[in-house]
Amino acid sequence: MASGSTTLGHVRDRVDRALQAFLGRQREVLLTTGPDLLPGADSISGLLAEGKRLRPAFCYWGWRGAGGPDCPEIINAAAALELLHAGALVHDDLMDASDTRRGRPSLHRQFEARHAGSGWHGSPAAFGMGAAILLGDLLLCWTDEMFHASGLPAEALRRGRPVLDRMRTEVFAGQYLDLLGQVTGDETLASALRVVEFKTAKYTIERPLHLGAALAGGCDAALAAACTSYGLPLGVAFQLRDDILGVFGDPAQTGKPAGDDVREGKRTVLLAIARDRATAGQAEIIDKYLGNPGLDEAGMAEIRAAITATGAVAECERMIGRNVGEAIAALAAAPITGEAREALAGLAVAATARDD
Amino acid sequence: MASGSTTLGHVRDRVDRALQAFLGRQREVLLTTGPDLLPGADSISGLLAEGKRLRPAFCYWGWRGAGGPDCPEIINAAAALELLHAGALVHDDLMDASDTRRGRPSLHRQFEARHAGSGWHGSPAAFGMGAAILLGDLLLCWTDEMFHASGLPAEALRRGRPVLDRMRTEVFAGQYLDLLGQVTGDETLASALRVVEFKTAKYTIERPLHLGAALAGGCDAALAAACTSYGLPLGVAFQLRDDILGVFGDPAQTGKPAGDDVREGKRTVLLAIARDRATAGQAEIIDKYLGNPGLDEAGMAEIRAAITATGAVAECERMIGRNVGEAIAALAAAPITGEAREALAGLAVAATARDD
Repeated sequence: MASGSTTLGHVRDRVDRALQAFLGRQREVLLTTGPDLLPGADSISGLLAEGKRLRPAFCYWGWRGAGGPDCPEIINAAAALELLHAGALVHDDLMDASDTRRGRPSLHRQFEARHAGSGWHGSPAAFGMGAAILLGDLLLCWTDEMFHASGLPAEALRRGRPVLDRMRTEVFAGQYLDLLGQVTGDETLASALRVVEFKTAKYTIERPLHLGAALAGGCDAALAAACTSYGLPLGVAFQLRDDILGVFGDPAQTGKPAGDDVREGKRTVLLAIARDRATAGQAEIIDKYLGNPGLDEAGMAEIRAAITATGAVAECERMIGRNVGEAIAALAAAPITGEAREALAGLAVAATARDD
Repeated sequence: MASGSTTLGHVRDRVDRALQAFLGRQREVLLTTGPDLLPGADSISGLLAEGKRLRPAFCYWGWRGAGGPDCPEIINAAAALELLHAGALVHDDLMDASDTRRGRPSLHRQFEARHAGSGWHGSPAAFGMGAAILLGDLLLCWTDEMFHASGLPAEALRRGRPVLDRMRTEVFAGQYLDLLGQVTGDETLASALRVVEFKTAKYTIERPLHLGAALAGGCDAALAAACTSYGLPLGVAFQLRDDILGVFGDPAQTGKPAGDDVREGKRTVLLAIARDRATAGQAEIIDKYLGNPGLDEAGMAEIRAAITATGAVAECERMIGRNVGEAIAALAAAPITGEAREALAGLAVAATARDD
């Protein structure tokens, strides 16, 4: 795990610097429109100052695994995925009406507060929504800008492009499935797992690996399959860890107030399992608090106890362990460099560890 | 004008076919996620079935003007701008709470109605918002996909890329300025014109021309300046025509119910001029109805009469005439092919004509 953390840290610091350089240039472009764009630029920089940079890390090791050399250009291209992720988070927080992100107010709340504090006309919420939509749109578009300005040869970019395209269609389609599941009340485990596949496993791990490998020289069928065999089980494990943290996590670690996921009524794999196993009494407690905006600390303690009592947490921990094991086992036969095999094994542990 | 309409029609039909082919392929990709994506794919196809394809037309003639040959590849690249535009419209309609677009319910209203008609959980408005955000995001991302899959050589795409990047940052920044002006109550003509410059003139005309020219072989300083001298005044004229149609237009032509712009309280150049010239009585009528959701046909007649009486409509018509003249005059000295000069003169008239 030390090796995973170190590997993650090594790539993360370079991704951080690449993002800072890119955002510094974009700030200048925005300010040519007028000084009014400064708060938007600041909010974007604030959001992108944090983050584990998992998607860039998997993209980088997909590249190295396929024999690509360490170089600044792949760091730039990989860092572009962080802009996509930031744009998706801004829009996601707006849809979920989330108040916080990475320990700060979510972007729409920042602009709502700016409106309310300035005594402007109209509704603060509408202004916050508009600003979040537009700044999220900017971030999504900047993904392509940073990717194509990475310095990688045109031929490499041409190979990577369809993977980036596919990855984005999948993540927005996955988010739509999630939204639809919430309103139709589809709470089956199968449905929750399908959302996790598209919204998390492919988007966070499998496609970034495919992208890095394609950029490096082409991702043939054997390499693509190895990335999938590692990426999909690991992606599910990663989401399960997130599900558990969303209910049981320390706010200092999650960057969100305790219980936010429960208050928002998120349909997770953890909850689907809990419902499957719940006694009538446990189910009643879960239904009482899930999606309840008035949920307080006492209610949180009650729903935590009920979920734990179903055995769902232990089951999720078993699934995490099994999936991480499966992912690491898939590396043994993967046609990648030894260095990448070791780094990806470390990343698998680091990305799903309790204390990461 | 006949020549302009014909030219526009010629490019438009080919852009329509390119979009249909692209959307047909994307539909297949979406359906691999599940059949639940079908309504989203249908709504996107419906939205993109309409449109004057102005931005693709300017991109195409920027390419031809710089000596690029007629070919399907430039049609594909130019058509990508229509995806960007559709994504921006979906998000714009959500921010403006508009009910209609191109004669159909706006996308967020379509999904609201789907929710309400299905008896699903939660708020129809929240579901409509989520679907519109995600499908708009998809469209924005597909812009890059269609552009890079256009079939143009990698070197051409490399030249065009920074123009596309700049254009997108400008349009979202311009929209933010518009949003900010609405809440701060900045109703000056200078402020309205700054929004028009970024949100319309650069985005609709100048940058598409620059993009086409850059794709064709590089947009040198003289050519870039000529595109600007033609594009910026024409863009302002185009917006002024839109402002007038927004208040006085026939719903069959605008695709929106009469008075929608007034009901939404849009701050336009037309209104800024009307305010500047209004007597106290005229100003009172304008303030009474602008942004008033309860505005009816009698109120529309009253505010129309007041705006006309200020002389603002006549002034806008004079500005349109002057700006179109200026744009066409700039073509005389432009270092472009004769065919492009003629087509762009026709487009200038067609894009700003009363009956277009």
